[in-house]
Amino acid sequence: MSKTAIAAHDASCIFCKIIKGEIPSFKLYETAHVYTFLDIQPTAPGHTLIIPKYHGAKLTDIPDEYLQDVLPVTKKLVKLLQLDVEGQDGIGYNLLQNNGKIAHQEVPHVHFHLIPKKDAKTGLGVEWPAAEPDFETLGKLHEELVAKLEKTE
Amino acid sequence: MSKTAIAAHDASCIFCKIIKGEIPSFKLYETAHVYTFLDIQPTAPGHTLIIPKYHGAKLTDIPDEYLQDVLPVTKKLVKLLQLDVEGQDGIGYNLLQNNGKIAHQEVPHVHFHLIPKKDAKTGLGVEWPAAEPDFETLGKLHEELVAKLEKTE
Repeated sequence: MSKTAIAAHDASCIFCKIIKGEIPSFKLYETAHVYTFLDIQPTAPGHTLIIPKYHGAKLTDIPDEYLQDVLPVTKKLVKLLQLDVEGQDGIGYNLLQNNGKIAHQEVPHVHFHLIPKKDAKTGLGVEWPAAEPDFETLGKLHEELVAKLEKTE
Repeated sequence: MSKTAIAAHDASCIFCKIIKGEIPSFKLYETAHVYTFLDIQPTAPGHTLIIPKYHGAKLTDIPDEYLQDVLPVTKKLVKLLQLDVEGQDGIGYNLLQNNGKIAHQEVPHVHFHLIPKKDAKTGLGVEWPAAEPDFETLGKLHEELVAKLEKTE
């Protein structure tokens, strides 16, 4: 039994090669559906990637069964990296998954970044252009979406 | 049967109140384990939150069964919001979950941001202080982590 079997794969994909062991990696946890390893260009020490063992560029390309292990395994990594220290406001972490070049995705194989956040200089910095609440616009969008949602359910 | 039953809850938590319907929200999908709604301070139109129906501040506080619906429901939201347009490089999205104040978490109830990215001005902007590969440091960290991992498995 090989844990590194990969369902759909792309022979030219660097992450598929890592899963298959054709390219070395700093592997941490692995399940039948996901593979995790240290990012070699970390934004902070311990920056880890969680990837499904199924080739697909965007979240919607990945079957649910390959996604089901992502968050439970991320919890294990958080503990392994000691990022869950109770009452320690100075230790945090971000989980980020980017879809599309415009959204900062570089490798077209779905990957979740687990990024430790211990100071202002390392880890993920976010720009958050939040709008003030505009209930009229929100209400219209909500109405449109609910109408679609009812059609598809 | 109520879909809005909430397992562990905190009476003072704004997201617990939203799940219980004590505070109105622009609800979209809901399952037995997660609740989703439009963020009222969107960084881009369609900015949506996915929250477990279980009160906990950080990812490690949430039981796996409450997390298992997060990514499948996110896929449905991506389709509902029409963010999965094939071959459309100008449409992307980010999925972000912040843990701890230092990591930009504002409400201490686990929440995943699904943020449409259609232009440079709206949506998530990221600062990514990536280091160049330093295989010696990475190798040492990996060795330490693997040793811990073997102890706990």
